Amino acid sequence: MLLRIDHVGIACHSLEAAIERYESVFGLSVVSRETNSEQGVREAMLALAGETSYVQLLEPLGPGTPVGKFLARRGEGMHHVGYAVADVAAALAAIGGRDVRLIDSRPRHGSMGASIAFLHPSDLGGVLTELVQPCAAS
Amino acid sequence: MLLRIDHVGIACHSLEAAIERYESVFGLSVVSRETNSEQGVREAMLALAGETSYVQLLEPLGPGTPVGKFLARRGEGMHHVGYAVADVAAALAAIGGRDVRLIDSRPRHGSMGASIAFLHPSDLGGVLTELVQPCAAS
Repeated sequence: MLLRIDHVGIACHSLEAAIERYESVFGLSVVSRETNSEQGVREAMLALAGETSYVQLLEPLGPGTPVGKFLARRGEGMHHVGYAVADVAAALAAIGGRDVRLIDSRPRHGSMGASIAFLHPSDLGGVLTELVQPCAAS
Repeated sequence: MLLRIDHVGIACHSLEAAIERYESVFGLSVVSRETNSEQGVREAMLALAGETSYVQLLEPLGPGTPVGKFLARRGEGMHHVGYAVADVAAALAAIGGRDVRLIDSRPRHGSMGASIAFLHPSDLGGVLTELVQPCAAS
């Protein structure tokens, strides 16, 4: 069901400062920038060499957003992990019967045209987990 | 330099309980179990379908180990991310000049025969970062 690790989502206070750091240290490049008002973030995706996995940098749109609250509680750091799946609706249907709390019971819009859904961290060892059906696989 | 996300390392209180959960929810299978006394952990690697990325579950050998202290401070959750590189020594040499604190100034032994090195989270947006040269690429 899980094909690979698609991305790690990293919460940061300043998107520009974080981009500058990841570009200068690792030579990564931004391949997408978006503002997702539904999720309350400004974000950038930086592609790794294989172009099938990404570092996702997330700056909250305000302190009351999920990422804003995360930063206030825990500081900068890894916020979630995203796993690539072939079909997010099918994955949700399968996982829904396995005693895991779904944050999204149906797919919604994610980065770069992906179809995504989040699973609750409490049932997955404290890890906020995202299922990602990349746009090209739709 | 960074080829792909090799693994996410997840700190857990009970390795067996975490394995059972990740196997039952996602259908993953353990491909390696090790005790790394140098790092103070018992661990399991669970392969994703593509077999180029892994979920790494980490149980501390004691409360005074790095993962034990992490659990006491933050609870279960993502502990670090590992990026695959072709040559960890070359990557360390390149990164060493870029204002990033190296936890390991030279490669050491990691999971499944890999050669690894850790970079300090304070210079990377709060993310403990591991460079991984998988055994097959040595």
